[in-house]
Amino acid sequence: MKLVRYGDVGSERPGMMDGDTLRDLSGVIDDVTGDTLNDETLDRLRSIDPTTLPEVSGNPRLGACVGHFGKFLCIGLNYSDHAAETGAAIPEHPILFFKANSAVVGAFDDVVKPRGSTHTDWEVELGVVIGTEAKYVSKENALDYVAGYCVINDVSERHFQTQLTGQWTKGKSCDTFGPTGPYLVTRDEVSDPQNLAMSLDVNGKRMQTGNTATMIFTVAEIIEHLSGLMTLHPGDIITTGTPPGVGMGMKPPTYLNVGDVMELEIEGLGRQRQEVKMDA
Amino acid sequence: MKLVRYGDVGSERPGMMDGDTLRDLSGVIDDVTGDTLNDETLDRLRSIDPTTLPEVSGNPRLGACVGHFGKFLCIGLNYSDHAAETGAAIPEHPILFFKANSAVVGAFDDVVKPRGSTHTDWEVELGVVIGTEAKYVSKENALDYVAGYCVINDVSERHFQTQLTGQWTKGKSCDTFGPTGPYLVTRDEVSDPQNLAMSLDVNGKRMQTGNTATMIFTVAEIIEHLSGLMTLHPGDIITTGTPPGVGMGMKPPTYLNVGDVMELEIEGLGRQRQEVKMDA
Repeated sequence: MKLVRYGDVGSERPGMMDGDTLRDLSGVIDDVTGDTLNDETLDRLRSIDPTTLPEVSGNPRLGACVGHFGKFLCIGLNYSDHAAETGAAIPEHPILFFKANSAVVGAFDDVVKPRGSTHTDWEVELGVVIGTEAKYVSKENALDYVAGYCVINDVSERHFQTQLTGQWTKGKSCDTFGPTGPYLVTRDEVSDPQNLAMSLDVNGKRMQTGNTATMIFTVAEIIEHLSGLMTLHPGDIITTGTPPGVGMGMKPPTYLNVGDVMELEIEGLGRQRQEVKMDA
Repeated sequence: MKLVRYGDVGSERPGMMDGDTLRDLSGVIDDVTGDTLNDETLDRLRSIDPTTLPEVSGNPRLGACVGHFGKFLCIGLNYSDHAAETGAAIPEHPILFFKANSAVVGAFDDVVKPRGSTHTDWEVELGVVIGTEAKYVSKENALDYVAGYCVINDVSERHFQTQLTGQWTKGKSCDTFGPTGPYLVTRDEVSDPQNLAMSLDVNGKRMQTGNTATMIFTVAEIIEHLSGLMTLHPGDIITTGTPPGVGMGMKPPTYLNVGDVMELEIEGLGRQRQEVKMDA
């Protein structure tokens, strides 16, 4: 299934894609959140004949594909080819930082550079949404705890990230820096999360080309590691690092300007598109 | 006012202290959360004669004094005397990291060391709870955006924090590593947040003695800085750094063992007490 949340910011309703048709799920579940991502509820949704659901007319905004989640966990430097690009050593364990959960927006919302930003950069990433509470999970069965996958743009202000005294989270947590969606694609439709082509264009020019096959730590290994540190709750989002081609790694480094358009895609998970604005 | 949340984990109800008497607020507000920490609601609560509220009998558990909040923002190395103790340079800007919001527990709940933990440490800190949405706020009026203050134990696993490949958050986010409360003391009752004595004992021995007067960045300066990076939402918690006396700074370094008891106090904000357990 491809689950979505559609409608204005803060009043999104749950929906499901039926081919290209958006159908309303609000008669079945309240929202797409941690409360509705358990296997039992997903099985119930899967058993519905989509044609019995109301068709949503028009072309509504799509919000982030998960609402009201707790944690926005981010893995850094997780692609061997991206690590090579930045000259960083291969980490011994997954590098963890947080994005503020208030940074999340929809896949087609504007990305707004905060005041003073001159180094805003892009990062296409595979997002993993937890469906079942996970603590001390082993990598062998870690993927059973996943509700589904989505596209995430881990937008990053490099100056804030590295030049404002320590800890990357400053450059990762600005409002609008977490486009998530458009779809939450349930795990039954992703046969191998470690073999998904991914790309990101800026103004129609291909900047990032990658595949989740070159991850240093697989999704399963990341869940094993994180769930050994803390409980992962249903709805928690993990974004798993970016392949080569970020602006910071270009010669010379290149960052986003007002009016630039980012377009992202991951195989089977859909496309995002954001225009860059600047906070007044 | 001293606001509390009482009851079992996950089903806490709102309450208010009337001297030493706990009174139930669930006829007035649903919970103590970002939705109920705005000035208007706090004024309404303040206008209630506490003796008209039902008295809560027995001795219920007190949960974290804020529920269902978004961000758990943490400032590192924010006391000049603590920076000196650890040999760290005075930072140019507030150091920001996140605690997982799933780490929060009540003031008297157990602190449970995760599997493999051998370096769990204590940190008494002044907690600041946002009442009004804050973006690009100046330090001159930053405290107007605060709902109130509380005691926080920023429990920290030093090995996870520094030896598991980058970013402090790994050692800060373990379940139970954020005792918060017992009270949310509204800002009208804290005449100067920069002159509060604070202490932490382990097994009855005084380990930390400090005063918020030695903060490098004041609460107002922290809110100015953070609100320039991202929107602070009602209910968001900021914990503002710890004074000298953490276990890591002792000679030799000393960490928490199963059965140890931490007792924390900040002037006017109440006391916490946690017993240390180990995850099975």
